[in-house]
Amino acid sequence: MKRVYLDNAATTNVSQDVLNEMIPAFNVVYGNSNSIHSFGREAINLVDRARDKVAKAIGAKSNEIYFTSGGTEANNWAIKGIAHANKDKGKHIIVSKIEHDSVLESCKSLEEEGFEVTYLNVDSNGLVSLAELMHEIRRDTILISIMAVNNEVGTIQNVKAIAKTAHENGIIFHTDAVQAVGSIKIDVNDMEIDVMSMSAHKIYGPKGVGALYIKNGIKCKNLIDGGTQERGLRGGTVNVPAVVGFGKAIEVAVRDIIVNQQKIKTIRDYFVRQINARIPYMRVNGHQYQKVQGILNVGFEMVDSEALATMLDLEGIAVSVGSACMSGVAQKSHVLTAMKVPEEYSKGSIRFSFGRNISKEDIDYTLDKLVEVVSRLRAISAVTKTGRAK
Amino acid sequence: MKRVYLDNAATTNVSQDVLNEMIPAFNVVYGNSNSIHSFGREAINLVDRARDKVAKAIGAKSNEIYFTSGGTEANNWAIKGIAHANKDKGKHIIVSKIEHDSVLESCKSLEEEGFEVTYLNVDSNGLVSLAELMHEIRRDTILISIMAVNNEVGTIQNVKAIAKTAHENGIIFHTDAVQAVGSIKIDVNDMEIDVMSMSAHKIYGPKGVGALYIKNGIKCKNLIDGGTQERGLRGGTVNVPAVVGFGKAIEVAVRDIIVNQQKIKTIRDYFVRQINARIPYMRVNGHQYQKVQGILNVGFEMVDSEALATMLDLEGIAVSVGSACMSGVAQKSHVLTAMKVPEEYSKGSIRFSFGRNISKEDIDYTLDKLVEVVSRLRAISAVTKTGRAK
Repeated sequence: MKRVYLDNAATTNVSQDVLNEMIPAFNVVYGNSNSIHSFGREAINLVDRARDKVAKAIGAKSNEIYFTSGGTEANNWAIKGIAHANKDKGKHIIVSKIEHDSVLESCKSLEEEGFEVTYLNVDSNGLVSLAELMHEIRRDTILISIMAVNNEVGTIQNVKAIAKTAHENGIIFHTDAVQAVGSIKIDVNDMEIDVMSMSAHKIYGPKGVGALYIKNGIKCKNLIDGGTQERGLRGGTVNVPAVVGFGKAIEVAVRDIIVNQQKIKTIRDYFVRQINARIPYMRVNGHQYQKVQGILNVGFEMVDSEALATMLDLEGIAVSVGSACMSGVAQKSHVLTAMKVPEEYSKGSIRFSFGRNISKEDIDYTLDKLVEVVSRLRAISAVTKTGRAK
Repeated sequence: MKRVYLDNAATTNVSQDVLNEMIPAFNVVYGNSNSIHSFGREAINLVDRARDKVAKAIGAKSNEIYFTSGGTEANNWAIKGIAHANKDKGKHIIVSKIEHDSVLESCKSLEEEGFEVTYLNVDSNGLVSLAELMHEIRRDTILISIMAVNNEVGTIQNVKAIAKTAHENGIIFHTDAVQAVGSIKIDVNDMEIDVMSMSAHKIYGPKGVGALYIKNGIKCKNLIDGGTQERGLRGGTVNVPAVVGFGKAIEVAVRDIIVNQQKIKTIRDYFVRQINARIPYMRVNGHQYQKVQGILNVGFEMVDSEALATMLDLEGIAVSVGSACMSGVAQKSHVLTAMKVPEEYSKGSIRFSFGRNISKEDIDYTLDKLVEVVSRLRAISAVTKTGRAK
């Protein structure tokens, strides 16, 4: 059976060029990069080169890049670390309602400790309002964290304007850029970002590695204590092969960003036009223009999203309902809820996320199956909220 | 030049059989194990099988195994998580002075929050005294954490007796078993362990993955918040290839434990006898019998350990001074200090740690170079504390 993977926002495969760079670090240059002997020095050389690549990709200095076990650890570290390191200045944090669960749950954890968190609304496009942000800033606000790109709908926030607002009020600005890297150009200095989370496995790098950019001078307490690794800020033996893979992946992702995004845009636009023409009662969730090319969230009326995803899966097509992180949890997407997507659409919304290897053939196959499956589900849907005939 | 790697306690290479199992999870079965489609289900199948292997290796149930990014994260999670989840019962913790830095630094972090920590002494063999432990237990003690095997000298603690003492007093017992797995037989039920940290890269598995065993019923708060992964206790996309590698590595390590330990013991005993015969003024640090075979800490009088390690490195021989985690820090080993190793030996102490692929040829080469280097260093050592002639 044909298989089409349209869940690249959940994770990508590791590309062959990335894997080729990683392999020697498993069994040839296998030293502990914290060891001072030749085996260790060989490993630290690999790590240093990877760190340079990550730094270069986002316009940072190498000594501002701290490797983590992934985006979730990076987000936990940023939110909790900045809060704990700056609590003498205040205990108020501002985030948006559509942040990733690793940010929202970290905030909940801080609330239990006595921190106060304001969760900003977003408009129907998924955008944070700068006016509302300014209104919510308090004298004791120490951190504003707004994601650069939303993982469910792809909306791109006005990061630079938000960062400026934060800085005008002497507040640290963190952004979760896990879905942004490789999809939009990022320059931490130009965008005035203080702290930024990244992940490798969304850009054809390995799982289990990410990084936190911490601008020199920003105070952020350790999340994982231990030895002298990562300038003493993140204990644990450095995952050399994964770090090497991350370096290669981000280098390639940033190098090829325009070509890849243009290719994906062309195919996605075709996909949307075709769905629009062939399936009635649908809508695209998220901003029409200010969004990444690879994430497409579509709501179908009179269809249940779980059923739709399952039926597509039976046809070999992988899509997701909400984010992968919350799979198995029977709850409405907090992102679509915050965007006030009408319920008749939100309960039938699924995410297609396109990879750089997507082909028109895959998309045509998906379109045919999607038309079939939606129409079948609507036919067996006995009653619908809107009462429309099928 | 010949190269001999005698730093396997810092990290091992990834064995070919482990790497072979990992490779397909990078680019064939690459789904997010939290996704519900077929790509995700294939990944979760791999993760489940690996989890079963880790559980089986230590006599636990599969639903008591939580994957982490390594031993350091596991130790941080255990110490901080148990403390935070049980702080209503008390704020006192007992550890030993020779714990790994990830445990000691986690304790320091808790002390800043208001927890109280007692650091137990060890005897000259590196053993915790049960009498002292009992003496230090308080009504508000909530956690005792004692490592199963010390990483610098290899001493094996009386884990079961310590665990029993903890339980007789209604206290949770955690052990850092990073250096124990694959070196001594571990059965968490027989040894009455409540929570246990493990790592893959000390047993020919990949870096960047470990696990925390949490006995069902034990309360431990999340360290890394996020989605529904790891039964909601550890957020972040599961590092599928690494987890698969860990499963394979621990399966092999436990299966071959007797053969490997016997082989290493034979070679190590020969090594010690030869050093003893050929180099005067040396001593072996750590327990004479109650220790793992693979770790050998030797102190040479009238020699500086950094200089010794560096000279051996120039001959292609990799050893370590203290643990790799604290490299670059100009301080005495906290382990040797706690064991009260006389300073004339501690400042000239290095760790040889043997892997299962060690050969007599490598050892003979190392012996010849060691004799040469120690004698050269002693010759240029102008003055010694003891005033012995060179």
